[in-house]
Amino acid sequence: MPIDDFNPYFNPKGIVIAGARRSMGFGYDIPVFLKEHGWGDRTYLVNPSGGELHGMKLYKRIADVPDPVDLAIVIVPANVVPAALSEIGARGIRHVIIESAGFAETGETGAALQEKVKATAERLGLRVIGPNCVGVVNTGNRFASTNLIEEAMTPGPVSIIAQSGVFGNILMDFLHQRGLFISKAITLGNRIDVNECDMLDYLDNDPATEVIMIYLEGAADGQRLWETLKRVTKRKPVIILKSGKTPEGKQATASHTGSLSGEDGIYHAVFAQTGAVRAESLEHLIDLAKIFTTQPLPKGNRLGIMTSSGSMGALATDIAVSNGLTVQPLSLSTVKQVRGIAPDWMNVKNPLDTGPSMIFNQFLPMIMNDPSVDMVLAIIAVPYSAIKTIKQLGMKMEDLFGDLESMRAKLPQDKPLVLTVVGHGDFVNEISSMAGHAIPVFTAPEAAAKALAGLWRYAAQISRSS
Amino acid sequence: MPIDDFNPYFNPKGIVIAGARRSMGFGYDIPVFLKEHGWGDRTYLVNPSGGELHGMKLYKRIADVPDPVDLAIVIVPANVVPAALSEIGARGIRHVIIESAGFAETGETGAALQEKVKATAERLGLRVIGPNCVGVVNTGNRFASTNLIEEAMTPGPVSIIAQSGVFGNILMDFLHQRGLFISKAITLGNRIDVNECDMLDYLDNDPATEVIMIYLEGAADGQRLWETLKRVTKRKPVIILKSGKTPEGKQATASHTGSLSGEDGIYHAVFAQTGAVRAESLEHLIDLAKIFTTQPLPKGNRLGIMTSSGSMGALATDIAVSNGLTVQPLSLSTVKQVRGIAPDWMNVKNPLDTGPSMIFNQFLPMIMNDPSVDMVLAIIAVPYSAIKTIKQLGMKMEDLFGDLESMRAKLPQDKPLVLTVVGHGDFVNEISSMAGHAIPVFTAPEAAAKALAGLWRYAAQISRSS
Repeated sequence: MPIDDFNPYFNPKGIVIAGARRSMGFGYDIPVFLKEHGWGDRTYLVNPSGGELHGMKLYKRIADVPDPVDLAIVIVPANVVPAALSEIGARGIRHVIIESAGFAETGETGAALQEKVKATAERLGLRVIGPNCVGVVNTGNRFASTNLIEEAMTPGPVSIIAQSGVFGNILMDFLHQRGLFISKAITLGNRIDVNECDMLDYLDNDPATEVIMIYLEGAADGQRLWETLKRVTKRKPVIILKSGKTPEGKQATASHTGSLSGEDGIYHAVFAQTGAVRAESLEHLIDLAKIFTTQPLPKGNRLGIMTSSGSMGALATDIAVSNGLTVQPLSLSTVKQVRGIAPDWMNVKNPLDTGPSMIFNQFLPMIMNDPSVDMVLAIIAVPYSAIKTIKQLGMKMEDLFGDLESMRAKLPQDKPLVLTVVGHGDFVNEISSMAGHAIPVFTAPEAAAKALAGLWRYAAQISRSS
Repeated sequence: MPIDDFNPYFNPKGIVIAGARRSMGFGYDIPVFLKEHGWGDRTYLVNPSGGELHGMKLYKRIADVPDPVDLAIVIVPANVVPAALSEIGARGIRHVIIESAGFAETGETGAALQEKVKATAERLGLRVIGPNCVGVVNTGNRFASTNLIEEAMTPGPVSIIAQSGVFGNILMDFLHQRGLFISKAITLGNRIDVNECDMLDYLDNDPATEVIMIYLEGAADGQRLWETLKRVTKRKPVIILKSGKTPEGKQATASHTGSLSGEDGIYHAVFAQTGAVRAESLEHLIDLAKIFTTQPLPKGNRLGIMTSSGSMGALATDIAVSNGLTVQPLSLSTVKQVRGIAPDWMNVKNPLDTGPSMIFNQFLPMIMNDPSVDMVLAIIAVPYSAIKTIKQLGMKMEDLFGDLESMRAKLPQDKPLVLTVVGHGDFVNEISSMAGHAIPVFTAPEAAAKALAGLWRYAAQISRSS
């Protein structure tokens, strides 16, 4: 199956919505969304009652919908999905998103119905995303088969593949608030046809996608996942959050998307061997996406830490070292340079504890340029009372920390740099806006160290296999 | 040494500040802080130059300061600290906080100076907190030996012991933004005298302290720490974040507060045996404090999960089970009750995936009252577009989720309940304010599960040793 076969999912010529309706729910919301996002003239609503919805005509039968139309979104009740598929096939549409729930995730009766849907789709030669999903999003052309808030539609470099519909939708709700913007999102649901490998291949060939985030409960086809990841990770980082680590967790996924997640050890090996980066948690998944979309891959695993609080430096060191990075002494030349401007009490080592010296912007270039440092974590932890005093004296944050975004442009472009700001929320926000998109900002030292470790893990794997 | 011997640190009759000065820094800020917080008439500033500062008299010598005075805050340069101690001792003051840095944390010369300070203090019979610290905070009487923002001074049930000065101060800057309010805080610095055990005993006897948070780099006295923790944890939860887990992390702490942190395995055993709860990270420390200050101890380890997103339920299950909780089937009576109001498609098990049923407030009491559930994690993950639609239809959040704070009062008081809200920041804030102080709100399923597991670990330990 050629990859561009999936194009109608993301760039449809015309869309049929089977199950548009006047009462609250997807059948009511999705038509509004499409109309508001410029798809009104290419969206055809179907409901046996006829009439109008949101000022759009309700066609009584799928057969009545005019050309061109190449994508069907199915929202009808589970038991009438097979009939809907027959009409869709008869109308000459080959791409279908089944959003209806009530299949394998609900038990045996649902599983039997799902088998029937699958057989019908295969007989008619249909491609199917779902059932039990919310389909796709493409921010580039403002198309989505679900209802999203406007803020979620700002295009960006990250694409998401999620087995769960809600998971994908929820991520879109707040990732933009964490500085992450999305290109495509696909929620797979019960996967009677299209699976994570299909979408990995599609995104691999999608020029707008730079980083791929996956939420997986279990592989549709383990061998193919291995081969696909091996291929895709060569070009694009793939970050995977996988649930079902424990027998109880597996049990939970079985009743969720009707999937059976295999032994966790096998997944662990597959991800490690293929260069996929496994996230430990939802937060870690987001942190990894932040660093992968903004920073270069490091050439080695030597981390330089500078910090205004020794305790935060020690916490970061523990986590960095436990996760495969090294925190080695600085080069003699750097030590000399730092000593040249450091107050007497400063202990010049790695981590570099700058204490209350307040000359962050002078130390940062020194440590970034150190030849024995491959990446840098800079931790800012300054009592907010001191920040307030400094402001009262007429000083600006840029005087203390430098104009971070433009400063980054002058620092080595082949070394990752991340900031950690621990403290008052207003201070965190201020530094974050100074850092812009150039430097990711974390609010805890451990999270930053773990994100850098993930970046290195990928870099090491890629260089080994190339 | 009787415990109330530490009282002058938290409730001084009069305070000498050795090293008040007209230039920026602690010597300038602390007098302002004390004056603004009602301590102006009991604060005596000392500087050899004499004159005035902030409208307060500058005494030329400590000997000149009038009675009553029982606490000295020392901010003079490191090399003149011994001389200051002699004057303090001569003036009849026994309690001293040395905030000056430049001692063991800077190397050999500093270490020698520190030895001299220690010997001087011992000879004069002084109690010393520090050096290289910011001393103490008592929100109850608005006293602090450091400069803090006003928001940090709202009294609450948590007390903090931190080896690092900046760490303690920074925590005070933002814990209130996370719903955590502080009673006392003590930063120990290089610990030539007063250590974490002294302060644990003091806080154990402090009626305003309900939960104790510790940031530790290394124990001052391992055996005494074991005995003290064993005793204190019987009455109050003690949550410890310990750095120096790795050799490199240990190295980092050596140059920070001049302490040598021992083998991590030993600490791990000490914490486990004494009932201290070890935090994995700064975020985990805060999460644990949140749950310990708001929720009862569970009677067992059986976790009930309800979630509007199956994926979040699976992620929470994995982490809960990996951390010592069980996620067992619901009681038959509960299953019956839930089935009575659940839509057909709902799979009634644990985790209870409520999907888009939107009857959260009816399911929650059922699962909380289940006799085979000891604690509940309720996960709310609702697409923000749906929330917006619901609001447009005139419904309120209370209609969907119940009036959470007053609802909590009617649910079993011997079972912990936590919420996780994943989604748009405004939605998280809205639910958080509905939950008030009655239910802690987390923004990731894993963090909530880990916090509950910590609560159980403590409860199990306490019931075993009583």
